[in-house]
Amino acid sequence: MFGVKTLRTVGPAVCRRGASVLWKPTKTQSRPQSAAAGQRVDIGGIYPPIATPFTQKEDVDYHKLDENLQKYAKIPFKATKGTVVMTERMAGAGADLVLVVTPCFYKGKMDSRALVHHFTQVADSSPVPVVLYSVPANTGLDLPVDAVVRLAQHPNILGLKDSGGDITRIALIVHKTKPQDFQVLAGSAGFLMAAYSVGCVGGVCALANVLGREVCELEQLCMSGRWEEASALQRRLIEPNTAVTRKFGIPALKQAMEWFGYHGGTCRSPLQPLSEAESQQLRLDFSTNGWL
Amino acid sequence: MFGVKTLRTVGPAVCRRGASVLWKPTKTQSRPQSAAAGQRVDIGGIYPPIATPFTQKEDVDYHKLDENLQKYAKIPFKATKGTVVMTERMAGAGADLVLVVTPCFYKGKMDSRALVHHFTQVADSSPVPVVLYSVPANTGLDLPVDAVVRLAQHPNILGLKDSGGDITRIALIVHKTKPQDFQVLAGSAGFLMAAYSVGCVGGVCALANVLGREVCELEQLCMSGRWEEASALQRRLIEPNTAVTRKFGIPALKQAMEWFGYHGGTCRSPLQPLSEAESQQLRLDFSTNGWL
Amino acid sequence: MFGVKTLRTVGPAVCRRGASVLWKPTKTQSRPQSAAAGQRVDIGGIYPPIATPFTQKEDVDYHKLDENLQKYAKIPFKATKGTVVMTERMAGAGADLVLVVTPCFYKGKMDSRALVHHFTQVADSSPVPVVLYSVPANTGLDLPVDAVVRLAQHPNILGLKDSGGDITRIALIVHKTKPQDFQVLAGSAGFLMAAYSVGCVGGVCALANVLGREVCELEQLCMSGRWEEASALQRRLIEPNTAVTRKFGIPALKQAMEWFGYHGGTCRSPLQPLSEAESQQLRLDFSTNGWL
Amino acid sequence: MFGVKTLRTVGPAVCRRGASVLWKPTKTQSRPQSAAAGQRVDIGGIYPPIATPFTQKEDVDYHKLDENLQKYAKIPFKATKGTVVMTERMAGAGADLVLVVTPCFYKGKMDSRALVHHFTQVADSSPVPVVLYSVPANTGLDLPVDAVVRLAQHPNILGLKDSGGDITRIALIVHKTKPQDFQVLAGSAGFLMAAYSVGCVGGVCALANVLGREVCELEQLCMSGRWEEASALQRRLIEPNTAVTRKFGIPALKQAMEWFGYHGGTCRSPLQPLSEAESQQLRLDFSTNGWL
Repeated sequence: MFGVKTLRTVGPAVCRRGASVLWKPTKTQSRPQSAAAGQRVDIGGIYPPIATPFTQKEDVDYHKLDENLQKYAKIPFKATKGTVVMTERMAGAGADLVLVVTPCFYKGKMDSRALVHHFTQVADSSPVPVVLYSVPANTGLDLPVDAVVRLAQHPNILGLKDSGGDITRIALIVHKTKPQDFQVLAGSAGFLMAAYSVGCVGGVCALANVLGREVCELEQLCMSGRWEEASALQRRLIEPNTAVTRKFGIPALKQAMEWFGYHGGTCRSPLQPLSEAESQQLRLDFSTNGWL
Repeated sequence: MFGVKTLRTVGPAVCRRGASVLWKPTKTQSRPQSAAAGQRVDIGGIYPPIATPFTQKEDVDYHKLDENLQKYAKIPFKATKGTVVMTERMAGAGADLVLVVTPCFYKGKMDSRALVHHFTQVADSSPVPVVLYSVPANTGLDLPVDAVVRLAQHPNILGLKDSGGDITRIALIVHKTKPQDFQVLAGSAGFLMAAYSVGCVGGVCALANVLGREVCELEQLCMSGRWEEASALQRRLIEPNTAVTRKFGIPALKQAMEWFGYHGGTCRSPLQPLSEAESQQLRLDFSTNGWL
Repeated sequence: MFGVKTLRTVGPAVCRRGASVLWKPTKTQSRPQSAAAGQRVDIGGIYPPIATPFTQKEDVDYHKLDENLQKYAKIPFKATKGTVVMTERMAGAGADLVLVVTPCFYKGKMDSRALVHHFTQVADSSPVPVVLYSVPANTGLDLPVDAVVRLAQHPNILGLKDSGGDITRIALIVHKTKPQDFQVLAGSAGFLMAAYSVGCVGGVCALANVLGREVCELEQLCMSGRWEEASALQRRLIEPNTAVTRKFGIPALKQAMEWFGYHGGTCRSPLQPLSEAESQQLRLDFSTNGWL
Repeated sequence: MFGVKTLRTVGPAVCRRGASVLWKPTKTQSRPQSAAAGQRVDIGGIYPPIATPFTQKEDVDYHKLDENLQKYAKIPFKATKGTVVMTERMAGAGADLVLVVTPCFYKGKMDSRALVHHFTQVADSSPVPVVLYSVPANTGLDLPVDAVVRLAQHPNILGLKDSGGDITRIALIVHKTKPQDFQVLAGSAGFLMAAYSVGCVGGVCALANVLGREVCELEQLCMSGRWEEASALQRRLIEPNTAVTRKFGIPALKQAMEWFGYHGGTCRSPLQPLSEAESQQLRLDFSTNGWL
């Protein structure tokens, strides 16, 4: 009910760090194991929230999902082999992190007090580390800065995925959670460079399902301080990113995946397929930026 | 996932019409049975969305729920006996109507086309009639008027619960669905009289859990054209209603139920109990209007 | 700077009460004269916020304005002659009431305290009575209920024009200002009947520039308790009203005035003329409700 | 009526470039002179929107304003002397640029078409270059990206001040106006570094009235590619910046100016002075970041 979803997609596209750290077997440890083990779980890097292909009957098409994963693995990410192993392990063994979205139905009552209470309960009982997830475009609710600062002190909460894109807010969260070495991830490729510039450590980027190499290249440019080049690349990624997220959403993401050699397929209801005009505009958003 | 919830609370507080019409055994009919049977299912009247008492462990406290239902049945509603029977039947047999809230997570993509498609699918496959539910304060999404008008033509969709409170919109929906004899319910006691004045047939009112008699009295005044008295009563109900909904929410509803002799009890997480100051303000919202 | 505008349009379409009360020469009295004179200024009734015709050069076209006023005067309003006299007097002598909109540029700081201070200053120094004006669609700001309740106690503030259309809020304001005999006006014909039902005394209705007779008829039906007929008429007025306000705005109001025999003319920048498609939809909004 | 205000504050705090370019006497040229003269008017750098001190009677206190300007001139900005000369010239001769805010009262009708038409008219007739100004927190309206892109092609429109803080949007505007060498300014110090990182050329920062040196230092760090240091400084400026803008507004800006040796004084109505608790929180927002 509270939107717990697994970070099942962590592996395949991590481009910066070895998956071995990320995927250390943690299930058998006592909780909160990340703290108990005395080790920092590093969640930096680029994560594509992997699109799920469906069959005509709207069931998950595992065969096509596997083919996509093979392709993502062939991209020269740093952790190629490990991530494939991990991906396979995930299917059987469950996630190594959980990404927990803000509860939002009674959003009028979801103040800092209620949200701190909620995430504390979840983190207390979760066998794996928790990453907070704030996505106001979908939930109508921003996880307040003061709540994040409080929750960052919990030993089993190690980061935040922030999809709101308010860079002032994101920078302030980085600033105020410095003592906890809290890890903040940009929730979109649209503001990825700005996020790196203020101290974020990675991104969970829908666009990485389509332009995975390019998003990882942007990360590399930011990590190595080549801001001029980063800026030029970042700007060319904004329209494609907006097209597969806010503007046309998941149907566009899946359509674009097809153009770039992945299995995208159809969406499940209530999401609707793109109209012909939308599809053309989507193509334009890629082609005018030199990607098609 | 799409928030289908049963109108399990239909019975106990229907104050205007016999439950026999409402609760005709419909389960064995072929679907869509409401149309197939050639009969109009009348959903007019006042419905309290019955609060669920929980035990300390946050499980449903069926014993206390039953005691509340006995009390609601002692209020001189028109359909006292029948509704108790119906309520008991509900527990065993499932709901006779479903109230289906708008899907809302990908709210940016939930345009009229997607919503019409979604509700049509649900209504096509539902064994019992469907009531649409638009509650923008919780979902961040209004079911568009043109979508309602389209959906009103579906034989298995017989009404709408509108909790937004935009009376112009509600009146327009009544106006444009007249040919289908579509039944619109106010989703709150705060604008119940205005809703009746523009042609609504009832209300699903949280406040009816607390001031059930008074809400039914308001209905009677509206139904019999005694608008001056209705207006005076309506105005005294607004602050208590706002207090148990938008202002303090479900914790306040449960608190107020206790004051008026019902089992309210605590809320489940992530909802938080009222602070002392909030509880005092809640009491004031009832007492300054002469209810405590 | 703070959007003070005169209720210059009071006269022509008052349909319920004599203009003589409304238009008593007040300029020479000491302020606040409404209180000083010990008399209640009655602002009930229907007011069209009269559209201003412009010449090609975007100057006021007084000749056409006069012709419109002559036509409005020929409608069998109760106060025909008086209002024409008053209208002429207005041109020369200034307004008898001021309608003061909420300041809104620094809207983040416009809390109850600031707004009460502002309107108190204005009312203290105004030689004529003040009507508060809350229009969130334009200002992004609702005058809070508690501020209205405070301000209703000021002897030189006699009412509120509320264009937000939140009928629960409007009813609550009527309820909480009863001791002051505060007069609340609906700011739109879209919710005029609902507003009367909860105790409003009139309306300032853009639609009255086009369908003046019908809006006044709706008022009469409400005033005389013929709610069934009122409801039917109200519902037919919603689409035309929305079309000339929220949906297409002032350009549509002026276009529709032309269709109904008034001078509407063009708008001044930055407002743009209707496209052909918008114009056709506007016509449809009138014709499907039987007005064209 | 359309919120034209002069960039009268351009001079005193420009820290990067000589004022001589900025302040070239342009009044006698034919319009649009910036294009006609075939020269680029460079508006890069940091601008404090200089606070206006008032007397007790709420008149402008020119004496105190002058003292503030003398102090700003003593900060080692690059253009110290020139800007003082310019500032004095401004008083007598009028502005060299105009900053034109989006019209917003009929915001429902302010689509791209209307806004392009409006700004084109203004720019066509303005004797000095125009800078667009989008400030959704005050106007409830964002100047759409496509409108900015269109307007950037006008020879007398040379830039945009964007106070919305949506860094994705700002980067996209920079990207799509590259061919016109359009100059984008951050409208707040809260996202100044992120703005530089995506290609902005300066900022109009309320905080520069208080921490002028530090804001200019941030600019220098960004300009010289020292992003790590920039990031650390940027993060320490966010809370003070939010405190003097969105959180407590202009009264806080003026209060903080007093603490840092400038004349701030009181605000004019309807803005209200800070409460004691607000004043303490304001101080905390500076002190916890090491500024007090």
